[in-house]
Amino acid sequence: MIERAHPADAVPVVFETRPDRYQHWKLAVDGAIATLAMDVREDAGLSADYRLKLNSYDLGVDIELADAVQRLRFEYPDVRAVIITSLKERIFCAGANIMMLRGSSHGWKVNFCKYTNETRLAMEDASAQSGIRFLAALNGTCAGGGYELALACDEIVLVDDGHSAVSLPEAPLLAVLPGTGGLTRLVDKRYVRRDRADFFATLVEGVKGKRAAAWRIVDAVYPTSQFKDAVQTHARELAATSRRTSNGPGIALSPLNPTVTESSVTYSAVSLALDHRARTAELTVHAPAGAQPTGVDRIVKAGDHYWPLRAFRELDDALLRLRLNESEIGTVVIKTEGDSQAVLAVDETLVDHQSHWLVWEIILLMKRTLKRLDLTARSFFALIEPGSAFAGSLFELALAADRSYMLDDPDRSNRVWLSPMNAGLLPMSNGLTRLQVRFLGEPKTPGDLLAREGGFAPRDAEEAELVSFAPDAMDWDDEVRLAVEARAAFSPDALTGLEANLRFAGPETMETKIFGRLTAWQNWIFQRPNAVGEKGALTAYGQQGRAQFDWKRT
Amino acid sequence: MIERAHPADAVPVVFETRPDRYQHWKLAVDGAIATLAMDVREDAGLSADYRLKLNSYDLGVDIELADAVQRLRFEYPDVRAVIITSLKERIFCAGANIMMLRGSSHGWKVNFCKYTNETRLAMEDASAQSGIRFLAALNGTCAGGGYELALACDEIVLVDDGHSAVSLPEAPLLAVLPGTGGLTRLVDKRYVRRDRADFFATLVEGVKGKRAAAWRIVDAVYPTSQFKDAVQTHARELAATSRRTSNGPGIALSPLNPTVTESSVTYSAVSLALDHRARTAELTVHAPAGAQPTGVDRIVKAGDHYWPLRAFRELDDALLRLRLNESEIGTVVIKTEGDSQAVLAVDETLVDHQSHWLVWEIILLMKRTLKRLDLTARSFFALIEPGSAFAGSLFELALAADRSYMLDDPDRSNRVWLSPMNAGLLPMSNGLTRLQVRFLGEPKTPGDLLAREGGFAPRDAEEAELVSFAPDAMDWDDEVRLAVEARAAFSPDALTGLEANLRFAGPETMETKIFGRLTAWQNWIFQRPNAVGEKGALTAYGQQGRAQFDWKRT
Repeated sequence: MIERAHPADAVPVVFETRPDRYQHWKLAVDGAIATLAMDVREDAGLSADYRLKLNSYDLGVDIELADAVQRLRFEYPDVRAVIITSLKERIFCAGANIMMLRGSSHGWKVNFCKYTNETRLAMEDASAQSGIRFLAALNGTCAGGGYELALACDEIVLVDDGHSAVSLPEAPLLAVLPGTGGLTRLVDKRYVRRDRADFFATLVEGVKGKRAAAWRIVDAVYPTSQFKDAVQTHARELAATSRRTSNGPGIALSPLNPTVTESSVTYSAVSLALDHRARTAELTVHAPAGAQPTGVDRIVKAGDHYWPLRAFRELDDALLRLRLNESEIGTVVIKTEGDSQAVLAVDETLVDHQSHWLVWEIILLMKRTLKRLDLTARSFFALIEPGSAFAGSLFELALAADRSYMLDDPDRSNRVWLSPMNAGLLPMSNGLTRLQVRFLGEPKTPGDLLAREGGFAPRDAEEAELVSFAPDAMDWDDEVRLAVEARAAFSPDALTGLEANLRFAGPETMETKIFGRLTAWQNWIFQRPNAVGEKGALTAYGQQGRAQFDWKRT
Repeated sequence: MIERAHPADAVPVVFETRPDRYQHWKLAVDGAIATLAMDVREDAGLSADYRLKLNSYDLGVDIELADAVQRLRFEYPDVRAVIITSLKERIFCAGANIMMLRGSSHGWKVNFCKYTNETRLAMEDASAQSGIRFLAALNGTCAGGGYELALACDEIVLVDDGHSAVSLPEAPLLAVLPGTGGLTRLVDKRYVRRDRADFFATLVEGVKGKRAAAWRIVDAVYPTSQFKDAVQTHARELAATSRRTSNGPGIALSPLNPTVTESSVTYSAVSLALDHRARTAELTVHAPAGAQPTGVDRIVKAGDHYWPLRAFRELDDALLRLRLNESEIGTVVIKTEGDSQAVLAVDETLVDHQSHWLVWEIILLMKRTLKRLDLTARSFFALIEPGSAFAGSLFELALAADRSYMLDDPDRSNRVWLSPMNAGLLPMSNGLTRLQVRFLGEPKTPGDLLAREGGFAPRDAEEAELVSFAPDAMDWDDEVRLAVEARAAFSPDALTGLEANLRFAGPETMETKIFGRLTAWQNWIFQRPNAVGEKGALTAYGQQGRAQFDWKRT
């Protein structure tokens, strides 16, 4: 039961960076076309325990990629297409660093894959929702996670030099799965025939040239002499398919600068208070305090000070710190504070101006942050008390929580509010709104509730099924305390599995398949002795001696 | 890496039984209403290592349930509704036996859950496809797998005696998940609100009476004095909703009587040859040899001797033996032998007479058997050689395989054939046919292929993308041998995960959610030290001392 020290668990992780600090990527913007070139510094991994050879990556490399994609949305509204390529000779990317994986704890591996999956999905979201199209320009060998990065792009072109192959060697070489959506995207995005996918994903050397194109593993191959020109042509053609109409200037995303102590992370609109002994945390989001802009010019001028952008960037950062840096905090109480009407006013502005590029990007960031919450393997209980601001977009926090408790005290006003932001702009990974998922089996429709004015007092909210429980003032303290204490005493693994199954009722999408089916199997395999045991393939790789397997099939 | 002996792995398992041998269930048929009453014999578990107290179950109990559901289809065409209840006082069912789970290997637990899931889904298939409606009559406490059995029924009624509760105590009590679809059916079948489902599935004592009904956890509650009458009324009303129109007599399902040796299982139309040293098997299905009936009267008269019924019952039994009794056989070569035209003639008969109840039941059994193949965690390679009979319904075996190899020898005729049976009557768990899944990304439609006459010679089949590879006679032996050898050398776990992700492209259904999302998470948890470690909850339950958890959340 006692895990050994994991030097590759490089805790604490900081998730903020910016282009002038990148160590592994070069971002260059030329009009409508940006180029994001991978040039991983071997000696600049998050931990000194491994070297990032051959453009292999660790979490730090992916944090820079996620940052670049985010900045392309906000800081470069002119960009219509992004070329993802490498500055290394004859190597595109070797995938996740194997020494890093070997040296990491189970939890680190799982959270590393979850983050890289979210980054890939954020690229697909940028393409589908923002018209930022991605071209993978594979100028050399592309293995494992390298090919999964390419799979997240809209198009893949490969150099045909007789040498450069694409491959998913994880299963045959390391006895694990491609962990960043590769198998799902092969058959569900690129529609590679399942028998060919089976052949490809069990072939260490991978495929190259015409076969790669014929099997739809890449879109086109070009000889070395034509490759550079072809990449530019493809990028221009992709840019021409973009629906993005915005033009610069963009807005700057400045550092969040939270105050961090042993037991808290405090931002401007978000705070996270940690109780390590109880293994609980309080995550509080504050409603906007001052006047907020209502027109697009003033929103652009406010930039990253505008409350919804600021608050949700902070919330996103807090969730990531919780996941990676606070692994024993199992139960999170979500609170809000401030003026509900101020939140509803912001929601109205967002809805009214959603066709403006910056407002649209803010809405998309709120959506992705709430999805990050849905996918965070911690129990969330929302506590709705007098003085809270669970209104509209902030009410999504209560809907995303595993349960919500609303204090019913006749002496103190306490209301929750819906807004048009609850009606479709913030969907879950399964494509439905959180209200729709809540009412899958109800004869009443969310539409009736959305039309209600004046908010919902505790009994109305309970009656309308918007909250889980509405205890009165007499019971409140005990009921909430006991619920949190009971939760914190259950097996963390059982809760993770329980929540992963209860949170996503309704249809499945490629995104939920990646986080449900693929990730769950990968997590299973990441614990199997055949992968991580003393004689397992991940342990044995590159060492003396071969892997030894227990041959039982389950 | 070395697993300790697992006394509860009661290998070898025999999957055939019949009502006069049942030890745990009583089947009574009264016109349109059957009653299947659970009365588990404590001392008649598959292993002497545990006692089946309080109507708890092991695989042997579920084999009887599966047998009963199968016989209700074939032997009792008059039955329109089935009451599932218990003969024990104040106890419906306590779920899967905990001592059995504790004493079982990881592989046994996984395969036990897979089988019980297939049995529950076979009940839902009987309701949806055959009009055999199920009523769960909960006459007492109903916990864990007991409630999951109820969830597989069309309706659930609960006695309201102030004592009888329904519960899913697995997570809080044992640190595992309800393993038989419970979480999925709660939110995706009964549409229980996710926060209520969260509350319910973390509450050891469960819920009872009016709250159970108000939360849709059951459909109705009745006081003890009214319970028996209410059950009869509900059963009659359910029977009235049945679309089943068949009347007796049914046909008898007689024992399969295979010849079993150390290295083979041989049936009349199916044979399984095992090579334990190479960890491979050959599974061969023989086309019908003699004349087959073409009219329904003769089909009824032929009964279980009719080739498709016989061959697919045998195939089903062979797959189950492979799963539970031959855990180290990782790679299975699928072959067919005989007259393709005879298979096509049977297919034509089945399609023509699909509206006859027996023909329909045979088609449904073929469908379920092929799904069992899709869900079997072994690699399947179909070898299509001269003399084979991969035609129509038997060609589904090649489509279900991870890969197919077709010998291209100009001197020897070798063809595969499609039939109307490939066009929709044998769907996968995701609701699509295997041809549809194969052509998700193709411009051509399966319809064009289905209309082709004369079968497909190797190059035509390769061109039409019906087979993976068509090596010529020169390469055949080496290519096939190397493919099988390479497969048998990979990590069994990585292959299980790989296949689980590549086999099910396209939409997801409740069924695929159960086997993808839920099962994968359960398998993960079934290995976690918090459940099965020395201080894990499953180990500690009922022993001295409490479980001790590693509190890290992943």
